[in-house]
Amino acid sequence: MIENPYYSPEFHGDYDVISIGRLDLEEGGSIPDCQLAVTTWGELNEAKDNAILITTWFSGTHQIWREVYVGPDHALNPERYFIVAINQIGSGLSTSPHNADGSNADLAMSKFPKVRIGDDVVAQERLLREHFGVEKLVLVVGGSMGAQQTYEWAVRFPEKVERAAPIAGTAQNTPHDFLYGEALKEQIRSDPGFNGGEYASNADVEDGLKRHAHIWAIMGFSTEFWKQEVWRALEFDSREAFLTGFLEPYFTVMDPNDLLAMAWKWQRGDVARHTGGDLAAALGRITAKTFVMPVDEDMFFPPRDCKAEQALIPDSELRVVEDVLGHLGLFGVAPTYMPQIDRHLGELLDTKV
Amino acid sequence: MIENPYYSPEFHGDYDVISIGRLDLEEGGSIPDCQLAVTTWGELNEAKDNAILITTWFSGTHQIWREVYVGPDHALNPERYFIVAINQIGSGLSTSPHNADGSNADLAMSKFPKVRIGDDVVAQERLLREHFGVEKLVLVVGGSMGAQQTYEWAVRFPEKVERAAPIAGTAQNTPHDFLYGEALKEQIRSDPGFNGGEYASNADVEDGLKRHAHIWAIMGFSTEFWKQEVWRALEFDSREAFLTGFLEPYFTVMDPNDLLAMAWKWQRGDVARHTGGDLAAALGRITAKTFVMPVDEDMFFPPRDCKAEQALIPDSELRVVEDVLGHLGLFGVAPTYMPQIDRHLGELLDTKV
Repeated sequence: MIENPYYSPEFHGDYDVISIGRLDLEEGGSIPDCQLAVTTWGELNEAKDNAILITTWFSGTHQIWREVYVGPDHALNPERYFIVAINQIGSGLSTSPHNADGSNADLAMSKFPKVRIGDDVVAQERLLREHFGVEKLVLVVGGSMGAQQTYEWAVRFPEKVERAAPIAGTAQNTPHDFLYGEALKEQIRSDPGFNGGEYASNADVEDGLKRHAHIWAIMGFSTEFWKQEVWRALEFDSREAFLTGFLEPYFTVMDPNDLLAMAWKWQRGDVARHTGGDLAAALGRITAKTFVMPVDEDMFFPPRDCKAEQALIPDSELRVVEDVLGHLGLFGVAPTYMPQIDRHLGELLDTKV
Repeated sequence: MIENPYYSPEFHGDYDVISIGRLDLEEGGSIPDCQLAVTTWGELNEAKDNAILITTWFSGTHQIWREVYVGPDHALNPERYFIVAINQIGSGLSTSPHNADGSNADLAMSKFPKVRIGDDVVAQERLLREHFGVEKLVLVVGGSMGAQQTYEWAVRFPEKVERAAPIAGTAQNTPHDFLYGEALKEQIRSDPGFNGGEYASNADVEDGLKRHAHIWAIMGFSTEFWKQEVWRALEFDSREAFLTGFLEPYFTVMDPNDLLAMAWKWQRGDVARHTGGDLAAALGRITAKTFVMPVDEDMFFPPRDCKAEQALIPDSELRVVEDVLGHLGLFGVAPTYMPQIDRHLGELLDTKV
């Protein structure tokens, strides 16, 4: 393992790290001591039937949900719900390549095993059940890779998910998205400092991490984001300043192997693994009331891909979020973003199931 | 200079290399002996008023026009018109970093000067006038960077351009497109074999050229191209085979410095340079009957960007080309592509001016 100060409460606020013990993995092998970083808001009621699960996206953690999505003025209201955010495996806060030590020491760095979306969901279900006694979720919600986990929850544990809100993501990763993941990964791996994953510090891979940020620049935001210079809303006065002052440092503090572990997982998200490749059959299993929420300007999870999946989910609605930022609208920068999210999630939560 | 067998008649059919003498450049400096590779079809009539100019795109040459666009069954019909394709500076066939020798030897490889779209158009105008005696063009047509040159022609020499057909490109490069160019360039430059532009062979930069191809994979084609597996139309039986059998070798034979010279130029295409940054004033100068022809699925020259420009051109129409390939629809792979191009160009050529 290596020390990386980014993955600490200084940058991510309070959270607990909870062990769920040994986690056997779909691809073989196991994590001997799977630790999940967890943040909660609100109180679990006596009936234990007011819990909401938040899943996390690539490179993101619970912290963006704390800063943007959760609060008494939002649909994700801790005064009404017990809200649990569980950081995905490889996130850097939960068990990840850079922090594997102790009984996980054999998994450190380049030796980290392949982890799938399904592994995360199995781990999350165990944690909720064993640690909190939660057997049913009012709602599962997540963006991007969090949407992948949301779909996986709804297909794998239909009886446990009352409502689902996958935002800006798909149940079955698309071929284009797979190639996008490849391009992101090779930015990192092509840096000589990466050294096959056995670098001494993420700083050794700074060039690769910057290139990785530059690919996000052209796919994570929309063409209109750049044309309208929406970055000015983030108080930068030039495109270059936004890149070097925001997007590059956003990624260069992170751990390269952690990002690669998440990217590999993202590329292979697919609920049809439960049904021999039959996506319609998999999505047909979903009993949750589901709001499918693509972002209209998303360059790599375009609404048409999400709409095609929504059409296969029995009790579902398509709720397109309008945001010129595109996929990274998830950051909640646009003042028009959260009102849409709150309206959709509020209506979903108000739906009787 | 270095030898690169790709830039030869074996791969590009017959063409002439014509010197236009010294070309002074907008960014300063000059090309002492600017040589342009030229292909023609048909006969110039006595009045010299039946000439059409074809401009070339990034990494492309006249050859794709020969194979796909020009012929007696097409609107670009050599039985009616004298058609001239002039390969852009940096294309590898015209004066370019890899082939600079003789009196251009000081420009070789990393020492090649910055060349702009306007330099190309000035060079092309001189060649047409001095070599062929052509003072007026029935039509200027080009795709992508060829569209940039088409716009530059129509703004710089309005009296010489009767009709203009910019396909899948813009008059003023967008910020997103600039960043896309940056990402492409750094794939090449980050390869240790690039050696600051002083490699011994393009094979030294194979890794970087492959990564460059992978970025084209996610932006040059549309998300639907990959989803619908349209590459099967090119007789590949897997996505991976298409990448390693088509898209990677398409670029790895090319010269890295040549690609960088074109990319730098592409990033800065802007007709508003003629009017102190006023795009409306620049496009308002155009007197050519103009068909603006974006491709509906283009990821980086989206129709809305082209439509906004078309609205500023006095005698113009928006003619959207439907093609699931996206930007690289320009290759003419889809059987539905050329009928649309021929219909639009045919109608444009039939318009009285």
